[in-house]
Amino acid sequence: MPSKTAPLRKKITLALDDSSRDRLSITVNLLIIGLIIISIISIVLESEPSISGTYGHILRYIDVVAVSVFSVEYLARLWIAPDLPKYKDLPPSKARLKYAMSPMAIIDLLAILPMLLAFISVDLRFLRILRLLRIFKLTRYNSTITTLLTVLRNESRSFAAACFVLVIMLIIASSFIYLIEGKTQPEAFGSIPKAMWWALITLTTVGYGDVTPITPMGKVFGGLITVIGIGIVALPAGILASAFSEQLHKNKDNYRDAVKQALLDGVITPEEYQHLKTLQEQFDIEPEEANKILQNQMAMSSKNQSAKTDACPHCGKSLPAKLIDIDQPE
Amino acid sequence: MPSKTAPLRKKITLALDDSSRDRLSITVNLLIIGLIIISIISIVLESEPSISGTYGHILRYIDVVAVSVFSVEYLARLWIAPDLPKYKDLPPSKARLKYAMSPMAIIDLLAILPMLLAFISVDLRFLRILRLLRIFKLTRYNSTITTLLTVLRNESRSFAAACFVLVIMLIIASSFIYLIEGKTQPEAFGSIPKAMWWALITLTTVGYGDVTPITPMGKVFGGLITVIGIGIVALPAGILASAFSEQLHKNKDNYRDAVKQALLDGVITPEEYQHLKTLQEQFDIEPEEANKILQNQMAMSSKNQSAKTDACPHCGKSLPAKLIDIDQPE
Amino acid sequence: MPSKTAPLRKKITLALDDSSRDRLSITVNLLIIGLIIISIISIVLESEPSISGTYGHILRYIDVVAVSVFSVEYLARLWIAPDLPKYKDLPPSKARLKYAMSPMAIIDLLAILPMLLAFISVDLRFLRILRLLRIFKLTRYNSTITTLLTVLRNESRSFAAACFVLVIMLIIASSFIYLIEGKTQPEAFGSIPKAMWWALITLTTVGYGDVTPITPMGKVFGGLITVIGIGIVALPAGILASAFSEQLHKNKDNYRDAVKQALLDGVITPEEYQHLKTLQEQFDIEPEEANKILQNQMAMSSKNQSAKTDACPHCGKSLPAKLIDIDQPE
Amino acid sequence: MPSKTAPLRKKITLALDDSSRDRLSITVNLLIIGLIIISIISIVLESEPSISGTYGHILRYIDVVAVSVFSVEYLARLWIAPDLPKYKDLPPSKARLKYAMSPMAIIDLLAILPMLLAFISVDLRFLRILRLLRIFKLTRYNSTITTLLTVLRNESRSFAAACFVLVIMLIIASSFIYLIEGKTQPEAFGSIPKAMWWALITLTTVGYGDVTPITPMGKVFGGLITVIGIGIVALPAGILASAFSEQLHKNKDNYRDAVKQALLDGVITPEEYQHLKTLQEQFDIEPEEANKILQNQMAMSSKNQSAKTDACPHCGKSLPAKLIDIDQPE
Repeated sequence: MPSKTAPLRKKITLALDDSSRDRLSITVNLLIIGLIIISIISIVLESEPSISGTYGHILRYIDVVAVSVFSVEYLARLWIAPDLPKYKDLPPSKARLKYAMSPMAIIDLLAILPMLLAFISVDLRFLRILRLLRIFKLTRYNSTITTLLTVLRNESRSFAAACFVLVIMLIIASSFIYLIEGKTQPEAFGSIPKAMWWALITLTTVGYGDVTPITPMGKVFGGLITVIGIGIVALPAGILASAFSEQLHKNKDNYRDAVKQALLDGVITPEEYQHLKTLQEQFDIEPEEANKILQNQMAMSSKNQSAKTDACPHCGKSLPAKLIDIDQPE
Repeated sequence: MPSKTAPLRKKITLALDDSSRDRLSITVNLLIIGLIIISIISIVLESEPSISGTYGHILRYIDVVAVSVFSVEYLARLWIAPDLPKYKDLPPSKARLKYAMSPMAIIDLLAILPMLLAFISVDLRFLRILRLLRIFKLTRYNSTITTLLTVLRNESRSFAAACFVLVIMLIIASSFIYLIEGKTQPEAFGSIPKAMWWALITLTTVGYGDVTPITPMGKVFGGLITVIGIGIVALPAGILASAFSEQLHKNKDNYRDAVKQALLDGVITPEEYQHLKTLQEQFDIEPEEANKILQNQMAMSSKNQSAKTDACPHCGKSLPAKLIDIDQPE
Repeated sequence: MPSKTAPLRKKITLALDDSSRDRLSITVNLLIIGLIIISIISIVLESEPSISGTYGHILRYIDVVAVSVFSVEYLARLWIAPDLPKYKDLPPSKARLKYAMSPMAIIDLLAILPMLLAFISVDLRFLRILRLLRIFKLTRYNSTITTLLTVLRNESRSFAAACFVLVIMLIIASSFIYLIEGKTQPEAFGSIPKAMWWALITLTTVGYGDVTPITPMGKVFGGLITVIGIGIVALPAGILASAFSEQLHKNKDNYRDAVKQALLDGVITPEEYQHLKTLQEQFDIEPEEANKILQNQMAMSSKNQSAKTDACPHCGKSLPAKLIDIDQPE
Repeated sequence: MPSKTAPLRKKITLALDDSSRDRLSITVNLLIIGLIIISIISIVLESEPSISGTYGHILRYIDVVAVSVFSVEYLARLWIAPDLPKYKDLPPSKARLKYAMSPMAIIDLLAILPMLLAFISVDLRFLRILRLLRIFKLTRYNSTITTLLTVLRNESRSFAAACFVLVIMLIIASSFIYLIEGKTQPEAFGSIPKAMWWALITLTTVGYGDVTPITPMGKVFGGLITVIGIGIVALPAGILASAFSEQLHKNKDNYRDAVKQALLDGVITPEEYQHLKTLQEQFDIEPEEANKILQNQMAMSSKNQSAKTDACPHCGKSLPAKLIDIDQPE
């Protein structure tokens, strides 16, 4: 059997491979992306009574098409899992099971699951929200999101600390405003949980203005909290700015290391070139920048190479190259 | 014919060249800048009935003058296009066509086009907006805008990722608040598209307060969204901060490379100096900073020069010069 | 007596040591953290009349348990103070006194003090707020908060300058809006202190909208203040971003120095490895990053080692080692 | 005459020198700072009718005292101007004239001028605002403000570009919302200037909510403007973050250069140490950091020194030090 279906499976693998630049695969992936977007828009519009009244049948038809395509896509991806490079060495059934457990496969499953739930009756409005989760299918197609997620994961401890600061400030702000304005505006500040609404809206500098302190002391304290709010807002901006900067340098360092590695034998083979090209895209490095790194490293490499043939100043015999091969810590 | 008009064309080229420091060109360009600003202000004021009623004729007169001058300017720039350095090697007609297709020429055309449209009757208010587009003519005169645009282009993938995050959050926030408050406040949260207004105003921390959740659960969820809003606002700030930092280093590196290049022969000729001066302005490097880079490079160059020719001062044998010629990649 | 209680004290020291990975100590610390969080939530809920009416007795019971446990914890920590590494060389009584004066001990005391104040009758609502201060007990368990506090302390002068700018802008904004709108809206802008509420809400971009300028000139000036507000908000974000970036580099430099120190004798002993592990966590460096630094330094160290002992492999004469031992300040 | 008054002038110079750590000068400067703050508070409170009615005479008395002290201070500073280091080489009258033209002297004059204007009758409320300008007197005592101003001046072109972007966005936002909502809400969006109020409040993410779009198309466009608003707010934050980072590095480089200069002769004399101490404070470098730079440079210097005595590997005679004295471009 595998001998019969293997060519078809290979073709589907190529068609679904979003990193290839094959014409077929680009067409297939663009169609899927388009269908995701259309289906998201139709779910959003369906919630509007005036639209779902008139165009309801079209929207429902779009959803049926979308779920059918996504189901076929899900099954196809499950079927071709053994052909994926990372599951190469596993037996087919195990490869499929492992793929089914991967985050992308779960997202794909979530995109079609609500349709199945509709047969057992569930609240229609909640179902609609569930269907919207298929927007996460788009993350497959955006490589910068991966960088973003890496940064967020690396800085998770800093963000946790920032959240801790926010919680402490929230509790302090809400409990003091409850003390100060609790009796004047019992509706808004009558208890600490109630006062938290105002505190959060103020600390995040959103400032709806549906609840504001009215006593002089409440205004003084409220003003203080707005100032602290600037700091609260500045924290994640500062963390992200330094993290992005750091990630940029790390990506460049990694690319430079890869170039160094490729240049160990003095030349860059076509395969190495292809590999560097892939890394450059993966690390989000601009072509111009990548080129500069490459040239710098080639210049250094040729220097090292010539040094290898240079002689000891005492006896004229050649010296070990490492004397001039100084690694730079930063 | 070219022999007759050539001197005039050269003079106009000089007068319109915004990078020269010629007296005539400064005067001409300041006049154009002033006319752009006056004409923008007059269009803005014209929309106010109380002003256009009294001073309408003056404002209309200003516009006629502005359009006339801008038309002359447009035709003049088109005429002198063959004299521009970048179109030097093209035949005149091709140079003009190419210039007419350049972004700056299109902006210049947009500044005068609405006047022509007025002859075929169009909605007057829409025409007014179109005329305002002439504000983009000012970008010609601001070199820092170019740096800004470079940064934005380099980081376009990051901004796209940030927008993608915003869209996902917008859909999640609006669909959940629709679930939670849809029945309590049908006017504001009765459908996902309606709820998006609140979600966007909250996620961007603008917080008008015209629509706010009122149920306890809506407030808890709304509070969560305000916190996510801080993150959404922090993303572009972080991206820009790291991008500006990077651009600054790149500009300095480029300037340093140019200085190195100029110093290859050991001296900086007046032409090279002029070229460095232009680069310094183009790269937005402060004079003090540029001077420091120049001195550092000159010191290194003289060291290299002497090292290359220097033998050991005692025994006359040549010393391994490359031992000190260490390039630093960062 | 010390010989009798010493083993128990040692055991308690281990159980309370939050940096150890002993099973007992993890259990004890998780229990304390859990109790802090539960007790904070119960105090917050108690302030809500509808909840304290029904579940008041449960909440009061939780508080009694919490205060009891925190009291035992406080006394236990006081008792074991002489066993802490930093108080090793002091006599027990002095160690305890010194510990009692430390910030963490004072926070622990504040967590139980309000209960004692309850016996002498104080305003119940104020007491509630005081009890909330026990949230600071959690700072003991978050190492990133320490980094955050270090950054804030290092940048305290910058933040003071930012606050100074805010105060100047606050005074200018409130006094001018008082001049402009004082007579039109005496309720909101009738005096400079009154106008400060609007000025602060605007400068921090919170923008409640409970008070807004209504005259044309007031709106022009108000618009100007909102633009200045962007700058005010950008200041701390900029300071924090550059400070975090700086702290990151400092932490890495310190870690690199420690690795260098450990490698002075050419090998990393298990004790040194343990020490580096602790430093890595303390400096918030990712394992991957730490590993890279370690490998770089080991490569450099082995190079230096060989250089120091190496003679030219051909003629046996020693080579000038320091020629390649170049320290890089940045 | 100079021989008679010279000692007194010297004493006053010392007493007013805010950078010295003399007891007298600290006392005098603290008194002046206190008086500035008290006088600012009293002016602010005086504008509140309920306070000025009861305590008006006290506030007026405070102002008389403040103006008297500030006048004496102004005259004293004018008198001692010839003793200031920077005016050392000028004749006394010229030194005083030059000092009177300096920004700090003009601020000092502005602090006392309004009192004199009171004799010729001016609007009392405007006078009050003028008196508030004395808050700028405090800038003399905050060295970090100087760093801040340097950064702002260096980045003035970037901020101008950011303002230009804001103005373009403001015009686009207000003209389109005028097109969309002009007929529905003529009060708020009836003309472009009127619509600018909403556009500015939204672009700066202040979001009062006194004016909001109500038509569906207005809300869609308004939502777009809030997203652009995030970018507008991110611009100055990004500029400042990269500028602060840059300034930090520049300050450290300058300090390192000064240390290098001081170490040229191999030792740091007490005078040099004092000079470095002053620079460290001026450049806002932490003591710990400064110490590290100092030690690094001393280690490098000693290496250079020993290199000077080291020999050519060929003939055993000493080599020129510059071979290992490698300048680092960054």
